[in-house]
Amino acid sequence: MNFASDNWAGASDKVIAAISAANAGAAPAYGTDPLTARVRDRLVDLFERELEVFLVPTGTGANALALAALAPSWGGAVICHEGAHVHADEGGASEFYSAVKFVPVAGIGGKITPAGLKQAIETYPRHHPNVHQVAATVLSLTNLTECGTAYTADEMTQLCLQAQEAGLRVHLDGARFANAVAHLQAAPSALTWRAGVDILTFGATKNGCLMAEALVVFDRNLAEAVARLRMRAGHLVSKQRFIAAQYDAWLADEHWLDLAEHANAMAARLAAGIRASGAARLAFEPDGNEVFAVLPRTSAARLEQAGARFYEWGADSVAADRRPGEDETLIRLVCAFATTTREVDRFLSVLVGKAD
Amino acid sequence: MNFASDNWAGASDKVIAAISAANAGAAPAYGTDPLTARVRDRLVDLFERELEVFLVPTGTGANALALAALAPSWGGAVICHEGAHVHADEGGASEFYSAVKFVPVAGIGGKITPAGLKQAIETYPRHHPNVHQVAATVLSLTNLTECGTAYTADEMTQLCLQAQEAGLRVHLDGARFANAVAHLQAAPSALTWRAGVDILTFGATKNGCLMAEALVVFDRNLAEAVARLRMRAGHLVSKQRFIAAQYDAWLADEHWLDLAEHANAMAARLAAGIRASGAARLAFEPDGNEVFAVLPRTSAARLEQAGARFYEWGADSVAADRRPGEDETLIRLVCAFATTTREVDRFLSVLVGKAD
Amino acid sequence: MNFASDNWAGASDKVIAAISAANAGAAPAYGTDPLTARVRDRLVDLFERELEVFLVPTGTGANALALAALAPSWGGAVICHEGAHVHADEGGASEFYSAVKFVPVAGIGGKITPAGLKQAIETYPRHHPNVHQVAATVLSLTNLTECGTAYTADEMTQLCLQAQEAGLRVHLDGARFANAVAHLQAAPSALTWRAGVDILTFGATKNGCLMAEALVVFDRNLAEAVARLRMRAGHLVSKQRFIAAQYDAWLADEHWLDLAEHANAMAARLAAGIRASGAARLAFEPDGNEVFAVLPRTSAARLEQAGARFYEWGADSVAADRRPGEDETLIRLVCAFATTTREVDRFLSVLVGKAD
Amino acid sequence: MNFASDNWAGASDKVIAAISAANAGAAPAYGTDPLTARVRDRLVDLFERELEVFLVPTGTGANALALAALAPSWGGAVICHEGAHVHADEGGASEFYSAVKFVPVAGIGGKITPAGLKQAIETYPRHHPNVHQVAATVLSLTNLTECGTAYTADEMTQLCLQAQEAGLRVHLDGARFANAVAHLQAAPSALTWRAGVDILTFGATKNGCLMAEALVVFDRNLAEAVARLRMRAGHLVSKQRFIAAQYDAWLADEHWLDLAEHANAMAARLAAGIRASGAARLAFEPDGNEVFAVLPRTSAARLEQAGARFYEWGADSVAADRRPGEDETLIRLVCAFATTTREVDRFLSVLVGKAD
Repeated sequence: MNFASDNWAGASDKVIAAISAANAGAAPAYGTDPLTARVRDRLVDLFERELEVFLVPTGTGANALALAALAPSWGGAVICHEGAHVHADEGGASEFYSAVKFVPVAGIGGKITPAGLKQAIETYPRHHPNVHQVAATVLSLTNLTECGTAYTADEMTQLCLQAQEAGLRVHLDGARFANAVAHLQAAPSALTWRAGVDILTFGATKNGCLMAEALVVFDRNLAEAVARLRMRAGHLVSKQRFIAAQYDAWLADEHWLDLAEHANAMAARLAAGIRASGAARLAFEPDGNEVFAVLPRTSAARLEQAGARFYEWGADSVAADRRPGEDETLIRLVCAFATTTREVDRFLSVLVGKAD
Repeated sequence: MNFASDNWAGASDKVIAAISAANAGAAPAYGTDPLTARVRDRLVDLFERELEVFLVPTGTGANALALAALAPSWGGAVICHEGAHVHADEGGASEFYSAVKFVPVAGIGGKITPAGLKQAIETYPRHHPNVHQVAATVLSLTNLTECGTAYTADEMTQLCLQAQEAGLRVHLDGARFANAVAHLQAAPSALTWRAGVDILTFGATKNGCLMAEALVVFDRNLAEAVARLRMRAGHLVSKQRFIAAQYDAWLADEHWLDLAEHANAMAARLAAGIRASGAARLAFEPDGNEVFAVLPRTSAARLEQAGARFYEWGADSVAADRRPGEDETLIRLVCAFATTTREVDRFLSVLVGKAD
Repeated sequence: MNFASDNWAGASDKVIAAISAANAGAAPAYGTDPLTARVRDRLVDLFERELEVFLVPTGTGANALALAALAPSWGGAVICHEGAHVHADEGGASEFYSAVKFVPVAGIGGKITPAGLKQAIETYPRHHPNVHQVAATVLSLTNLTECGTAYTADEMTQLCLQAQEAGLRVHLDGARFANAVAHLQAAPSALTWRAGVDILTFGATKNGCLMAEALVVFDRNLAEAVARLRMRAGHLVSKQRFIAAQYDAWLADEHWLDLAEHANAMAARLAAGIRASGAARLAFEPDGNEVFAVLPRTSAARLEQAGARFYEWGADSVAADRRPGEDETLIRLVCAFATTTREVDRFLSVLVGKAD
Repeated sequence: MNFASDNWAGASDKVIAAISAANAGAAPAYGTDPLTARVRDRLVDLFERELEVFLVPTGTGANALALAALAPSWGGAVICHEGAHVHADEGGASEFYSAVKFVPVAGIGGKITPAGLKQAIETYPRHHPNVHQVAATVLSLTNLTECGTAYTADEMTQLCLQAQEAGLRVHLDGARFANAVAHLQAAPSALTWRAGVDILTFGATKNGCLMAEALVVFDRNLAEAVARLRMRAGHLVSKQRFIAAQYDAWLADEHWLDLAEHANAMAARLAAGIRASGAARLAFEPDGNEVFAVLPRTSAARLEQAGARFYEWGADSVAADRRPGEDETLIRLVCAFATTTREVDRFLSVLVGKAD
């Protein structure tokens, strides 16, 4: 019963097979191989426009590179949700890459609201003679959010528009973008460049790959900076065909969507079970592969003892009326492409005391 | 006929198989998996002492992290050979990671001499009241060197001793450490910590892995810094078991040495053929898997036309009496675990005009 | 009626005279002059212990250098009050100097409470295997605080002790340290190293100098780092005697305390007048040279029209029962060594409508 | 007999008087004062065009800011003379500010030749798909050079043109720009923006000020970056009127040229004396206020004993036929606005053994 993280899961069989297949013979290094070219073509098709792609092995590297490319040489402030991975979980990577300061914005369910963004932009205006205060230069959104909720294309568009009008560039952390696309049934373009996103971190690792993240750069004027920054950060992989092979198999025949849909379905089954259980309640309405549940501490302990793996989570983004009470705790349950109905059902059985 | 680089080669079958095997089930992320622990144990055995290991996906990341951990917070100067990868081929990574300045030292065959090191240390003394000039803080050596030559354990010891006496820490870039060990038939410990190395970048990628580099930290006081810097640089891989699996298979049963010995043997065969050919001459006596040859430009062109892949190289480190003349060029020929005798022999045949 | 800032004031006559006097003849550059040595001696006497002094021209430079010297090479998190200058008003300097992330702590009147510090330390523990979250490495306090209040020696000691026990180093931003010392009538040592401060930024600029800030380094093991970082940041002044001359005159015969006492007295007079006025109320009980007053917006406008210079201020640190109401605003009124009773009394007259 | 450095000299009387005069009353901080505005106007007149000015206290800060503003966010390589202050004497400041790597170019007399620049540009081309090697992004020239020689307007123009055609921006380190202008009797515009310079570091400190350096930004698109970088680096001075006052007096009535002409004349007198002495020879033909002389070590020792202050210097930039022999040394003799004919003549007398 692994609900700890989607990065505890392995890789899909197709992805593993693609790595084996890519191993035949010699191939040019550092991204000049044919597989990398094919991945770019696939992403052009998927996003319905010209773009530049930079493959890297980690999501933190991808996010930090994206913000470094979008921020001016003097850094400035990056507006993000207070729970955003770039701010809360990357060990200060973006402070290191580009010396930016994060301006965290609160918001229920991991989502920035137009009002929250407005206030942050007004507090740290992009153009202002007062240089003592940092100027906001980038808006970083996350979809699927850290709370497992999704921004719709309309929501994305509104926030991006606000950012653009204020002179900010926009980054989208898409570590679980596949789950958002699968849930919303929206075109990837509608959730990104058509909405106003400049660079997308399109994560594949959590959704069935080994180590595969793509910086999808819609504003091609940024391509040189990303290329140089990636090299300088040590994120240009020599045998890049082995990242490309993962993406190639993952993108082919909508395999990435199949994987995400499965993970989402498992989360939906879990959420439905929790709703019906009477033994726990949902902290947010799940839109993807993550379920956040409030339950008695004793129940959480019992689940762990039964072999369930999950993390306790901070309740900052939970609406006041759903917050854990004194004897309760908030847990995060992540489903992956590899999660089985058996795992979900067993968890629910233990939750309601029908198994242990 | 791929002699372009050992990173044009794929991965060994055992390594590919290990990745498939590692894919079974869930595993804790970020290096807390059992395979990572096993790799650490293997390296403890191999190096005959306690140590800390940090796996990362790229050699540039590994090198830049090593130098950042060894340099003080104010950076200073890193003494290295003028052709060292850290200085010449990593796109300014160490300038970015730790704002160091490289002090390049010339030396025949890619090797720093004690006299060269002495002069650099005296020019940029570690402890000096004059803060206008950078102070040398780290010595970075490379073994196998960029010219395919090897430092013996005695040579390593002498240089490290000089560095230590001058107050410098020592980094060893071991992108081709396996080839050096295989050639010298020396204990890995004798070429590293017994000689005075503080951190080794132990590269596996070029020698039969996909993406696998290990920071082997002999001074465990440096472990916290490496751990924090690795996170901050985005080089902590979430599904780290897939790097660990590569190392595990690579280290088992001396597979890494078998792979390196094969590559070295192919290079020796190539060098012998060149020596005997009368059509080219060796720029350096090769100690590992790289052969540097001086030959007429017309011959180089003919070889390329016949399908040979290799790079032209700068002749800075070539002794005066072996340098290319006006109509000649210096080429680098790299053999890998996957290089075949057929490729080598065909190259030699084309070189002497017996094939095309 | 300048209450805008103490850096709108000029320099004291003694300081100006000292600069003229220091101009005679040649003097060694970069801090090897006799005046710099004398300043060090004066500070040794004042702080009653051995220490190292580094003079720099700006307070932001001094603070960023102090934090860079105290933080490890991997940065980490600096705990500070949410209104601290280092975080809110230095344009991202410390993010640039050492890639740290600030952890802002709320607190009435600009002061961190032991409970607030405890929570921050527990949230970002110094030693923790989870590298995804930044680890707190430094506590940065400000005395006089940004709200014009003072930490007593006991309060300083308690906070420093908490920090030390948690493995953090301590920085004290003393841009208005003179005003705090003058108010508390405490020994400078009691407010710094005896309390547990590692580096003090001892500001002279705001209190009667032109450009003069001193990094007072109590832990001499940090001296090399500060020296190298200062050079690298461009804050080593060539003709340093001209900073030293300012300090020399400022420290002689307790001139610095005289200047601060005058500024404090002017603030006390202003505060007393406001208390008695019925036309405004104090946001905090002033301990130094800054008065924060809540008054009707119309009154503020009238004061500006009458020639008073001051800034509106954020009310985050104001206790709930003193916050500005809908038609009110919070203003900051800073007195300096050059502030006159005439200015103060005129301000008060305009405030109560007796002048305009 | 102070020939150690022009920063061992004090400030001119007019500059000291200007500081006193500027001390009257309150003035807005951080460069919004009237004196700063007047300095800008004076520089607009002097350079015959619109421009932006940023005053800072140190030359190293000014240079590092200039390069940081000119380099892209990914740094790249700065081409400079191998003896350039930015590379050799600023403690790694530019590596810290913008993570650039310096590409040092040799050249007799401290001057880069068109051929030397051509080779550097071709070795590190600005636009190249190979990201492993750093790309040259900035050319940094120094006028007066570190060897006391001057680039003419034509020489400047040729080098800038080469740089521009190759896609590089151009920085001019003018720590002794006044001496170059005074010597060449050229318009400041001809030596800067008309030649192709993007940012000039216009130094006043060495030539009669206390602490006063100006970043003169000809490409106003760079102004925001410089403003933000200056703040972030801690080089925005709060009581900036005291830097502005220095510039104001220094620029008025060509005082800066008078000071430089005097220093140059003293150097010319010294050089003439050396030429005529038979006891030493000039390493370079001096164009400004610096004289480099080769003389027997015994003579140098005798001069020091007689009270002369100077530094021994590296002979890298000396033409082969002028280099110091085994028993000789190369010394640098710097004249300043405060150097007297008595000092010069006494030096010469000691040199030829007529005094001691």
